[in-house]
Amino acid sequence: MVNEVRRTQPITKYEYGKLFEVEDTIATEYPLTVFVNGEEFATMVCTPTHLKELVIGFLASDGIIRFPDDIDSLSIDDEKGFAYVQLKNKQISSQSFVTKRFIGSCCGKSRQFYFQHDAKTAKTIRSRNTLTVQQSIHLMKTMQEDSSDFQLTGGLHNTALCTKDKVIVSRSDIGRHNALDKIYGYCMENNISLGDKVLVFSGRISSEVLLKVSKIGVGIILSKSAPTTLAIELAEDLGITAVGFVRGNRLNVYSHPERIINDLTSRKNSYTV
Amino acid sequence: MVNEVRRTQPITKYEYGKLFEVEDTIATEYPLTVFVNGEEFATMVCTPTHLKELVIGFLASDGIIRFPDDIDSLSIDDEKGFAYVQLKNKQISSQSFVTKRFIGSCCGKSRQFYFQHDAKTAKTIRSRNTLTVQQSIHLMKTMQEDSSDFQLTGGLHNTALCTKDKVIVSRSDIGRHNALDKIYGYCMENNISLGDKVLVFSGRISSEVLLKVSKIGVGIILSKSAPTTLAIELAEDLGITAVGFVRGNRLNVYSHPERIINDLTSRKNSYTV
Repeated sequence: MVNEVRRTQPITKYEYGKLFEVEDTIATEYPLTVFVNGEEFATMVCTPTHLKELVIGFLASDGIIRFPDDIDSLSIDDEKGFAYVQLKNKQISSQSFVTKRFIGSCCGKSRQFYFQHDAKTAKTIRSRNTLTVQQSIHLMKTMQEDSSDFQLTGGLHNTALCTKDKVIVSRSDIGRHNALDKIYGYCMENNISLGDKVLVFSGRISSEVLLKVSKIGVGIILSKSAPTTLAIELAEDLGITAVGFVRGNRLNVYSHPERIINDLTSRKNSYTV
Repeated sequence: MVNEVRRTQPITKYEYGKLFEVEDTIATEYPLTVFVNGEEFATMVCTPTHLKELVIGFLASDGIIRFPDDIDSLSIDDEKGFAYVQLKNKQISSQSFVTKRFIGSCCGKSRQFYFQHDAKTAKTIRSRNTLTVQQSIHLMKTMQEDSSDFQLTGGLHNTALCTKDKVIVSRSDIGRHNALDKIYGYCMENNISLGDKVLVFSGRISSEVLLKVSKIGVGIILSKSAPTTLAIELAEDLGITAVGFVRGNRLNVYSHPERIINDLTSRKNSYTV
């Protein structure tokens, strides 16, 4: 079965002083090779769900497409693990998208580093959307309760696209980037307006993750885990509120804290923020 | 300061019902662009330590070099984040190493998927090295106790190269693959014999991680976390013992369990294994 997210198989477990055989549940890893205009473009390893969204999100994130309409046709051969994409622009080939470092002329403190395609596709977020601390904690809790595959395998990352109050859609993948690309593909296919939305994410916030958030176009990301220095610099620069370590009744705000409001003092804050 | 592993900066924390400013420690993310024979080859983002090892391990893992002697010169410009590599073989260019999916003629149950460079560089491990359960648990505990940077930032992965009893060397990085590449570079530079060694790793065991273990040439990997289905298939096939969820007094053996011995019954087992 190609599209299984997990598989049960015998393993050897050590527990209570004994080694014994037991059935365990393992996260599936599935290679998907993407062909663009007839040429092999990239192979990613992923969890085999929502493959169409994954391919669309991946192509958008890499700057190959800007709108779903840039795609003429997209078909997936589940058995082989091949995705065939024909673009309206037949001139685009894999050679035109070799990833090169973008070295700007400015040596200032920010925007000193992007890949070339990131420099073209990263967006500055100007949304005035805000979120309360309790909403943040509630959204993280909801995503985690929904993620039964992670609980079974311990091997998946989760991303959820949310309003202030509830999860709209969530996607899982063995790859952090893939989980985000699936959400990106979902947003493009369904033409979702993003200014008032929030992304909730189980993984660390690296610069790559932050750039994907900016490309998707959401102003607030909530993570269970830590950010890096470069991700925080990019978040400052691109207008994104990066929130990490959302655990229990705590969280850390690393950039643009003006979007996160303390419920307990919100009456007062609502006049000042 | 270029080579700092972490940085202290102000963040906004929510705790005990209040939002307040506090100094926090964040893991550094540093872009390193590798030039091979004068051509831009790849940019990785990493923790800026042991960059020479990282570059050597990365080139070996990608199949660009097989021995340290294949490198004519290697210099690193810390300020710019550039590594310049001249190979003895001047014919090698970035174009010769575009990563293509390797599609074998055999459609059997294993070795059905590698990248081309993996098919050339992955090694089958024939070591008869064994490890007891208590040694496994002890090595994981030692690596974790050593990793103060992770404890401070929550954002680093750790890998340790070990004998049965102790850690020889450990490396940290924001990228799981980089931490392994640093160890790979260390082994190549120091000409370490690997048949009786063990790798201890903080991250999940994906197919990419498993392939790196096989390239490094170690027969046992201990992980704190979960493997994927594809990683287990490759481990079976390449003769690697993959051990996951080494936590507290428990562990799971996913492939080649003959190398893991229960101490409590080891007298009996030592005659049968």
